[in-house]
Amino acid sequence: MASSGPSHKYTALSGPPDFDLRYWRSSVVEEAFIDGLDEQSTEKVMTIKVAINGYGTIGKRVADAVDAQDDMEIIGVTKTRPSFGCDLAVRKGYPLYCTYNDVDKIAAFEPAGYTCHGGLDDLLAVADVVVDCSPGKVGAANKEAYVNAGVKYIFQGGEKHAMAGMSYTSSANHAENMNAAGTRVVSCNTTGLSRTLVPLYEHCGSLKVECTMIRRAADPGDSKKGPINAIKPVLKVPSHHGPDVMTVKPEIDINSMAVAVPTTLMHCHSIVAFLPEGHGLTTQSVLDMWRANPRIIIMNGGETNITTTAEVMEYARDIGRKWGDLHEIFVWEDGVKLDGNTLYYFQAIHQESDVIPENVDAIRALMGTEANWKVSVAKTDAAISAYNGL
Amino acid sequence: MASSGPSHKYTALSGPPDFDLRYWRSSVVEEAFIDGLDEQSTEKVMTIKVAINGYGTIGKRVADAVDAQDDMEIIGVTKTRPSFGCDLAVRKGYPLYCTYNDVDKIAAFEPAGYTCHGGLDDLLAVADVVVDCSPGKVGAANKEAYVNAGVKYIFQGGEKHAMAGMSYTSSANHAENMNAAGTRVVSCNTTGLSRTLVPLYEHCGSLKVECTMIRRAADPGDSKKGPINAIKPVLKVPSHHGPDVMTVKPEIDINSMAVAVPTTLMHCHSIVAFLPEGHGLTTQSVLDMWRANPRIIIMNGGETNITTTAEVMEYARDIGRKWGDLHEIFVWEDGVKLDGNTLYYFQAIHQESDVIPENVDAIRALMGTEANWKVSVAKTDAAISAYNGL
Amino acid sequence: MASSGPSHKYTALSGPPDFDLRYWRSSVVEEAFIDGLDEQSTEKVMTIKVAINGYGTIGKRVADAVDAQDDMEIIGVTKTRPSFGCDLAVRKGYPLYCTYNDVDKIAAFEPAGYTCHGGLDDLLAVADVVVDCSPGKVGAANKEAYVNAGVKYIFQGGEKHAMAGMSYTSSANHAENMNAAGTRVVSCNTTGLSRTLVPLYEHCGSLKVECTMIRRAADPGDSKKGPINAIKPVLKVPSHHGPDVMTVKPEIDINSMAVAVPTTLMHCHSIVAFLPEGHGLTTQSVLDMWRANPRIIIMNGGETNITTTAEVMEYARDIGRKWGDLHEIFVWEDGVKLDGNTLYYFQAIHQESDVIPENVDAIRALMGTEANWKVSVAKTDAAISAYNGL
Amino acid sequence: MASSGPSHKYTALSGPPDFDLRYWRSSVVEEAFIDGLDEQSTEKVMTIKVAINGYGTIGKRVADAVDAQDDMEIIGVTKTRPSFGCDLAVRKGYPLYCTYNDVDKIAAFEPAGYTCHGGLDDLLAVADVVVDCSPGKVGAANKEAYVNAGVKYIFQGGEKHAMAGMSYTSSANHAENMNAAGTRVVSCNTTGLSRTLVPLYEHCGSLKVECTMIRRAADPGDSKKGPINAIKPVLKVPSHHGPDVMTVKPEIDINSMAVAVPTTLMHCHSIVAFLPEGHGLTTQSVLDMWRANPRIIIMNGGETNITTTAEVMEYARDIGRKWGDLHEIFVWEDGVKLDGNTLYYFQAIHQESDVIPENVDAIRALMGTEANWKVSVAKTDAAISAYNGL
Repeated sequence: MASSGPSHKYTALSGPPDFDLRYWRSSVVEEAFIDGLDEQSTEKVMTIKVAINGYGTIGKRVADAVDAQDDMEIIGVTKTRPSFGCDLAVRKGYPLYCTYNDVDKIAAFEPAGYTCHGGLDDLLAVADVVVDCSPGKVGAANKEAYVNAGVKYIFQGGEKHAMAGMSYTSSANHAENMNAAGTRVVSCNTTGLSRTLVPLYEHCGSLKVECTMIRRAADPGDSKKGPINAIKPVLKVPSHHGPDVMTVKPEIDINSMAVAVPTTLMHCHSIVAFLPEGHGLTTQSVLDMWRANPRIIIMNGGETNITTTAEVMEYARDIGRKWGDLHEIFVWEDGVKLDGNTLYYFQAIHQESDVIPENVDAIRALMGTEANWKVSVAKTDAAISAYNGL
Repeated sequence: MASSGPSHKYTALSGPPDFDLRYWRSSVVEEAFIDGLDEQSTEKVMTIKVAINGYGTIGKRVADAVDAQDDMEIIGVTKTRPSFGCDLAVRKGYPLYCTYNDVDKIAAFEPAGYTCHGGLDDLLAVADVVVDCSPGKVGAANKEAYVNAGVKYIFQGGEKHAMAGMSYTSSANHAENMNAAGTRVVSCNTTGLSRTLVPLYEHCGSLKVECTMIRRAADPGDSKKGPINAIKPVLKVPSHHGPDVMTVKPEIDINSMAVAVPTTLMHCHSIVAFLPEGHGLTTQSVLDMWRANPRIIIMNGGETNITTTAEVMEYARDIGRKWGDLHEIFVWEDGVKLDGNTLYYFQAIHQESDVIPENVDAIRALMGTEANWKVSVAKTDAAISAYNGL
Repeated sequence: MASSGPSHKYTALSGPPDFDLRYWRSSVVEEAFIDGLDEQSTEKVMTIKVAINGYGTIGKRVADAVDAQDDMEIIGVTKTRPSFGCDLAVRKGYPLYCTYNDVDKIAAFEPAGYTCHGGLDDLLAVADVVVDCSPGKVGAANKEAYVNAGVKYIFQGGEKHAMAGMSYTSSANHAENMNAAGTRVVSCNTTGLSRTLVPLYEHCGSLKVECTMIRRAADPGDSKKGPINAIKPVLKVPSHHGPDVMTVKPEIDINSMAVAVPTTLMHCHSIVAFLPEGHGLTTQSVLDMWRANPRIIIMNGGETNITTTAEVMEYARDIGRKWGDLHEIFVWEDGVKLDGNTLYYFQAIHQESDVIPENVDAIRALMGTEANWKVSVAKTDAAISAYNGL
Repeated sequence: MASSGPSHKYTALSGPPDFDLRYWRSSVVEEAFIDGLDEQSTEKVMTIKVAINGYGTIGKRVADAVDAQDDMEIIGVTKTRPSFGCDLAVRKGYPLYCTYNDVDKIAAFEPAGYTCHGGLDDLLAVADVVVDCSPGKVGAANKEAYVNAGVKYIFQGGEKHAMAGMSYTSSANHAENMNAAGTRVVSCNTTGLSRTLVPLYEHCGSLKVECTMIRRAADPGDSKKGPINAIKPVLKVPSHHGPDVMTVKPEIDINSMAVAVPTTLMHCHSIVAFLPEGHGLTTQSVLDMWRANPRIIIMNGGETNITTTAEVMEYARDIGRKWGDLHEIFVWEDGVKLDGNTLYYFQAIHQESDVIPENVDAIRALMGTEANWKVSVAKTDAAISAYNGL
């Protein structure tokens, strides 16, 4: 059901291309975009070989998103040791490698019933690009291995911008990342902020933002972390979350505060954006602008009864994407208000998955195979939707 | 990837037939079962026309499970009014009907952009069997409509046994339900208890059980209900949950107590079963017995780090079933202990979905198309697994 | 242990006057304040007769706070019917009245073992002032009864400003409320905002504020309300919370957004205040200003390990105030940052109790017995601390 | 308001001696008990000097409970280092000591503004008995210090029975603990089970019990621990909780299972007790039996709307005990059912405080000053109630 033939439409991830129902409607895109899309099918000449270093929460999702594309393939994924998580890789048919090069650690997989194809260096030897999804902050050590192996590398938002030397989000700086040696796909929060703020900035020419991130304290599959019944402010104010947007779009003047709350589903952003005089926008035209941009879902809470992150996630389960993921940012239509020059809005962020399609786009940027970010986004999203059988 | 050819194995829902990894292994079944499976592919002669009355949490899941089968099809689903939930039906290609026969209510769908094919009676007129997934206790009124329309009917566990006149769970009384006019698929809790207790009873010849149900207080998509920070005992003791097992297997002597707790994911049962003298079982042989029975997943919490319902649900998301559902009962291998004649164990129940495959089997029972419950179960489960693309 | 003799200090509610430990230290107050305090003990000539209409969550707390004062007394409290809550009133020695004037409803108390002294009108006949703590929005009807009875009245923040005609918070507009017929003590959130914003405004002469209220979704004793696992944005943006500050201090230009989260303990405010040029403040001087104002507790999260609302409430339990209440606003010292003209800070609000001392002060304002708000505050707080035995 | 004069009643902790309201009624005790009570006031000749080693969650509560008694006093409490928690001790007037004997560690208190009276050995030198409330399992090392210093010692339930050599709960084995060198006050769960099971056992002569403990996953002041949204079964079955009852009453045949759930307030026990033939009890007589025993509160959930642990804790806050504690076990009257020989009931346990009065009784047992456990209980409870000003 992916975008096929001469279709001049693309779609939010939430639906097939020409889907036009009340709530799952596709978006008509601007002309420039259409041109790019037309060329898309003829340009593919190579299949990019992608390695996943760290097949966990993010790694398993990136692997499937890559697997869904016709211009790239998973050449291997790493696990630190034979464990439960290996089974998923085997079921998916992704070759297993060991995170380490140590022969004993590699040999430990066999007796546990898993075929291990070697250590990290063996995997890098056959890869064009590696997506580093390792937990914690082992990035610096890994970067050296990637550089030595001569493969392009993508880090995740948990690593520092300075280490990677470059950051990425599809809507903000795809062009700057073209043919770079490596980059860092920014965090779920930064990615979400970029989705709505970058088009706003591009319209306005300048933008000042204050936002509060109400963060889920733990992921759904994490039963260790609390709090069970408390609100935990991030006492370093302003927090690092907002300013991280400036690693991909330095022109946006943004600060943030953050709290963690006892929920596992999504982050929620409470955003106040100060637009410059003469912005010429209305609440409605802001909504229209976002609707014309990818990976933003806008729904009316009052009409749909989607009034909390619980119902947003239920909607994501209904859509049928793997793991009940929601790659898009969710904006409540009735929670947006432009009051003079001040824009207030809420958006919900699925922390486990919103960066997944950005990783795919980042691969195309580093490999230099698609210069138009909107073309890459449309291609990525259509393939993921098709992969999930909708 | 469903069961194909002359395979003499069937599988827990969690994997394709000949999957044999460490944690997602299939089960070898007993001989009698194998015979049934061989005949399965040749027996289908008709396609059962299934109506879903109430396309909500349970209805949408039953619809997809029916849609996955090759011997039945969804002939229509009902909604009370044009609303957000209609889109999912449209996307799936299920004909929409109105829950009511009122012409105004039927007419209200068109202006909202949905094609409504008529009222409930119109739907019943073209159906062989209706699965009643309406909320609340409107069963008695509905039953009259079903009987008048001459269609077979299946109620859910929220309705009383007395109203339906018959109850059903695949492992307990499929045979008694053959060709019945209607039945009630018992609740998620009763279905879960039947899965592990019926084989135990059948081995032992008698069984006395005391259990405590630690229930999730609200479903994941429900943001209204509490408590946020409390334990709520069901003060009617013993509770109705355990004794409901006796509607499908009256020989099991069972009582229960129940509490609701602030979680949305799964129920957890804490079970103490008193076996008769001379039962001849060991902890290991009980586990083996359950492994040889369908829709029971047994994993070792210590080995897999699946130590809470959060990790169980994460595992379900990895498996890739729609909505992150887990149709199987989850039993912790290291939480089972047979101490003399007393068997202690925990099991986790995915309240939104464990009854889904039972509804499919119940359709076959009422329609009289498959007398062997294990054959029906194997057919149902293989089709669902294939439908979910694993 | 209350303030005694010629002490020239007053104290935050959290400690006795000359307490000077590391974390529970008292504050030295400004000269004007000292003068007022000196006169305090000689001025009392009457005992104000206070009625509580609605002896529930707020009512029971206001009653005890009034009972603690030497210039007022509880003349009676109302309950709608004989119930569990009556026992607390009896234990406290507060005369019970019926919320209604209906003779049958009044008579219903006796057989249940409670002495009922009459209906609401009987209570109003012996009262000087009534504190309306009735739930929901029955204010308009009640107001008529109060006016007819010729008693002063105080509503709570759940009622609209327009109905009461006047609003109150100790630090903002005590003087304007002197001798008024009635007023409304603003909500817990507005009271909390006033505590920190009013002194800031008074220093700066103008103030613009954007804040996000992260609200507890239900009170600790409420097991009905959810959500269990979701964030619920208040889709009306800007929300009503911030602008309510302008009912007591119209000069502050403030907007707010709000979300509800699954916790019961406290609200948390994430505040961004834009100071005018030439404010002359530093992060440290802002902290000093707040320390010199009453009902603000400032602690360093890093030093005390009080890093979430859970530990704040544990601290409140240690302090020993009834119900584990915290009348003060809690500000994290290490969560305050003045960055140029922009001030960022977090504060936590105990929604069940922060308005309690304000109700006592409001009684003095309406009765015209104390014109200096700081004198009233010091008197109120010292009496409450003494009442709680610290 | 403590027991005064020749009163022949004693009271549950929840109320003053001759309090007789609907829900806060006192209990009439049996004759033997009355005799003991009469002697109580004349027997006191010494004041027991009590040291608290570890002034934390349990330590601070035990200290206040001891401080409330007229036959014992707090001679000192220990902290590991100068910290926030020291202030509470200073406010209370409890002499501060260092947990260690190291001079540098002792010296560190002074510069932080606290007077430290020495190390642990200095404290032991002036104590008759030490209550060990240190966290973790440092008991063995501490025991040696206590024995060497020649002081009696009381450990908490976190330590093993074997280490202490003796266990204690007031209703089960006060007599066996008379004049012992040391003992272990059993855990909150075991204490709670003893309260209701011991009288049942003593009536029946034999008792077999299966119970499920639904445990709060973290204390209210603990924001670190999860799970946020999961049920965590204790996979070791049967769990250690139930059998621990046998350290104080070996004749009770008991097993248990346990789960942790995302709440902070209370544990809830779901209990099935199998009574021997000829027990002669009814649901009502069981309730009467418990009402005649101390530290059990029985309320009807339907009548009082106390239907979850949230409302139980709210009731505790209303009662006015420090920290909102509930020393009593809470049994729902309408959640008790004797069905033939099988007794079903729920009880809620305030994990932070139910063992506190037992520690006081244990001091009297070890010091040999009161041989009648009911006399000690009545004395302990009346003093605590008075201390809390009710």
